[in-house]
Amino acid sequence: MPYTAAMQQGRPGVTSLLVRHALFAGIDAATVDQFAQAGQLQDYSKGDTLFLQDDDAEWFYIIVSGWVKLFRETMDGHEAVIDILTSGQSFGETAILEDGRHSCGATAVEKVQLLRLPAPMLKRSISENNRMALAMLHTLSQHRRRQTREIESLTLQNASQRIGCFLLRLCTIDMAEPIELKLPYDKSLIAARLGMKSETFSRALNKLRDETDIKVEGSLVTIPRLEVMSSFSCSACSNEFPCDDIS
Amino acid sequence: MPYTAAMQQGRPGVTSLLVRHALFAGIDAATVDQFAQAGQLQDYSKGDTLFLQDDDAEWFYIIVSGWVKLFRETMDGHEAVIDILTSGQSFGETAILEDGRHSCGATAVEKVQLLRLPAPMLKRSISENNRMALAMLHTLSQHRRRQTREIESLTLQNASQRIGCFLLRLCTIDMAEPIELKLPYDKSLIAARLGMKSETFSRALNKLRDETDIKVEGSLVTIPRLEVMSSFSCSACSNEFPCDDIS
Repeated sequence: MPYTAAMQQGRPGVTSLLVRHALFAGIDAATVDQFAQAGQLQDYSKGDTLFLQDDDAEWFYIIVSGWVKLFRETMDGHEAVIDILTSGQSFGETAILEDGRHSCGATAVEKVQLLRLPAPMLKRSISENNRMALAMLHTLSQHRRRQTREIESLTLQNASQRIGCFLLRLCTIDMAEPIELKLPYDKSLIAARLGMKSETFSRALNKLRDETDIKVEGSLVTIPRLEVMSSFSCSACSNEFPCDDIS
Repeated sequence: MPYTAAMQQGRPGVTSLLVRHALFAGIDAATVDQFAQAGQLQDYSKGDTLFLQDDDAEWFYIIVSGWVKLFRETMDGHEAVIDILTSGQSFGETAILEDGRHSCGATAVEKVQLLRLPAPMLKRSISENNRMALAMLHTLSQHRRRQTREIESLTLQNASQRIGCFLLRLCTIDMAEPIELKLPYDKSLIAARLGMKSETFSRALNKLRDETDIKVEGSLVTIPRLEVMSSFSCSACSNEFPCDDIS
């Protein structure tokens, strides 16, 4: 079960988490303070359920550290991974625009710290404060860009290119070659995140190795040349590396 | 080239188009009237380009009749069909939340009539009128639901189930069986819309025929039993027929 860590932390810590998020950028201090007072820092362990699809949305969340999986469950019991989010990203806030229920479930992929904030306060705030409504529009617009890119990638990139794209998103253009990366979570979850079965993932990773000379040992990946990787993966995409749609 | 039909139509026609759209539902008459005065009805022929990816967004659009394709182009010249929209749906409005440029291209799939409205007017309106900002939030939230469902479908449904899902979205639960449908646009575009190559589409359609006893002759489809079709397609989805996320 999560414990509330907020009592151990000063509110200034919560405030600084809030103002780094697009939803609170440029918002008046009184409003930010109201959310900071109501916010609760909580820690979760790997596998903890944060909420289920169709749950009433009492809270929305900003990730302080760790990874969170958003998913939907099908009639026949399979799971579609809709997104995997990390520090600085928010989730659950769009329920206030729908019927007040979460449109997907959320679980902790690993140890995760979250700042949870009351959904009714956000709903009231966007009705009364136009700057909050505009900030929320920008947040939703970012979500939409991520999703558009995701649809494009699922439509046009092959499995190897999708893995390459995933790895490139962990890189920045100023990294020294050969680039050494640690996979952020385990391979079976990466496969699910990319919409692949585990067998497909393994085959596609082998093909990516052949095409780009990367090395994969456990969760460590070495990319000898960024340009080789980006020309392989980005050719089937409308973005060039470095991507401008990472939020 | 498109011609402006607005002069042949009274503004009341434009007003009634506007108030049926979620963006203008519940908005004060003065604001609606301002958009109605600025709106232009335009007709386009099949294949006409409405705008290209990265174009400055001068206008946003509400579809009066016909079908519009939104797409992105990859580095290697392929096209990802992001969405295909029809009467009552809008597009291009989210550019005002980004950098003022369209994040995808748009073309007329067939003869189409559009109501185009000035993007700067919308941008100003959401800043000054909180109800407009809230209405825009709801519009974006609808887009997001469509896209989430699309990602889920691309991830978990097989090609035959995706075609079945596409057909089910043309049905309502009160239709008498056998249901006779006309495909809304040609099969190659349906294939692209569903993220499939033409060969995959043909094979998957044959499999769907075997599984559900549908008949396909040219653009006419006969579905003998809705329940057989929905249990085949919806088992790999988190929605049940009839879908609640059709906007």
